[in-house]
Amino acid sequence: MQLFYAPDINSSLYTLGQEESRHCVKVLRLGAGATLHLTDGRGTMYVCQVVVADPRRCEVMVVETLADYGRRSYGLTMAVAPTKNLDRFEWFLEKAVEVGVDAVVPILCANSERRCEPHGQAFKSERARRLMISAMKQSLKAFLPALEPLTPVKEVLERGFGGFRGSGGSGGSGGSGGRPTLKLIAHCREDFANPARVPITRALPAASDAIILIGPEGDFTAEEVALAVANGFVPVSIGDSRLRTETAAVAAVMAAYLANMQ
Amino acid sequence: MQLFYAPDINSSLYTLGQEESRHCVKVLRLGAGATLHLTDGRGTMYVCQVVVADPRRCEVMVVETLADYGRRSYGLTMAVAPTKNLDRFEWFLEKAVEVGVDAVVPILCANSERRCEPHGQAFKSERARRLMISAMKQSLKAFLPALEPLTPVKEVLERGFGGFRGSGGSGGSGGSGGRPTLKLIAHCREDFANPARVPITRALPAASDAIILIGPEGDFTAEEVALAVANGFVPVSIGDSRLRTETAAVAAVMAAYLANMQ
Repeated sequence: MQLFYAPDINSSLYTLGQEESRHCVKVLRLGAGATLHLTDGRGTMYVCQVVVADPRRCEVMVVETLADYGRRSYGLTMAVAPTKNLDRFEWFLEKAVEVGVDAVVPILCANSERRCEPHGQAFKSERARRLMISAMKQSLKAFLPALEPLTPVKEVLERGFGGFRGSGGSGGSGGSGGRPTLKLIAHCREDFANPARVPITRALPAASDAIILIGPEGDFTAEEVALAVANGFVPVSIGDSRLRTETAAVAAVMAAYLANMQ
Repeated sequence: MQLFYAPDINSSLYTLGQEESRHCVKVLRLGAGATLHLTDGRGTMYVCQVVVADPRRCEVMVVETLADYGRRSYGLTMAVAPTKNLDRFEWFLEKAVEVGVDAVVPILCANSERRCEPHGQAFKSERARRLMISAMKQSLKAFLPALEPLTPVKEVLERGFGGFRGSGGSGGSGGSGGRPTLKLIAHCREDFANPARVPITRALPAASDAIILIGPEGDFTAEEVALAVANGFVPVSIGDSRLRTETAAVAAVMAAYLANMQ
């Protein structure tokens, strides 16, 4: 199955862009009548048939529309401090989209890298977006998770999380839209024992909506954890292994995924 | 805490290699009396003190020996088909070491990439070994997982798994040495429904020893899955998301890690 991204689809006839037309006709050799799939990145999957197999402007016709395609039973927003090494953060983004996430909020923390400061470049947002689109297509998902701009962690901690849809920027492929959101913060501070950290596997029941915070290489500061607790966040542990930031973030995404496995 | 790899340590005095001596004295600026840690990669952690802070040959003295450091309550051998893209397999190796694994067996399957054939190069073993050593040091582990040579999947399927130590090549940081080993094979074949796949979360109880097989991009063939079942392997599912080979492999490592979280 081949999936194409068509964010601007708005009728039963659609013309692929030049590059995708070429890929479709020249590389995949799809001729008139062949079936392909499009997604608007907002949860709808379109089963289409090639009408005009033009390698510059391939026209397709929608034959079936599948709404809420691959909808998950849980909602997940990951608020993660970009890593010193850009590749590692981008790798987290790819894996998060593949496994399942609704929104990613890159956070600016006290111990964040200097380049994350106001005028630095925490991550390449355009490149990150392209990478998320290709991960969506590769994993045959119809929902493109939201990628928010770099946000001071304080803002995220003090943000209200009414219905889950509110937390994901542009909504999500998971989430009830109603349930209260579980707010978790993963940290490794020995000097912050009260409240004690709960194993993430116990803090994330099936069919829940959650936002999980993962700190920078230098961890969250005691002040940041205290502010989180004051705002209703539950401190969690991601086990005894000393995990890199991006590994901890992927472990959290996997914990939610595995907790909801049928 | 800084961890150095000293596979050849055999007395209470040890001289670091030139590169590590330089790192220790010039970069970390450790002087006589400073504390550092060494591991033999076989489970023992040595707490040491610098005796001679020579940037070419730094001498240290062992002040404390911690055997079975960070020993896990479970054993895990991952048999994974190297990916078409070498980086992705190396990324899996790094994450597996960070999170916890005893041995990795790269497997050659019917649908493996051509370069995995006898004279091809499935993966760069020396590079992979260096990468595993640095992941061990970075995650402060005292055990260096075994990395076996590329092995035909049939050999792995027909291998006897008496005590777990037998399956990990050079033994492991986890595993009871006694329990029978759970044998799991993850596949996505719609045409192989009997026995049905069990969710990996249900197939991996805490404190178990397991070997988990992850197939190539083209999945295992029906024949390979049938041979696995005939040899007592249980077909498992890693959920509904369409995961890349290396993502499925990391998900399996995480499933074992999370199942054993206290």
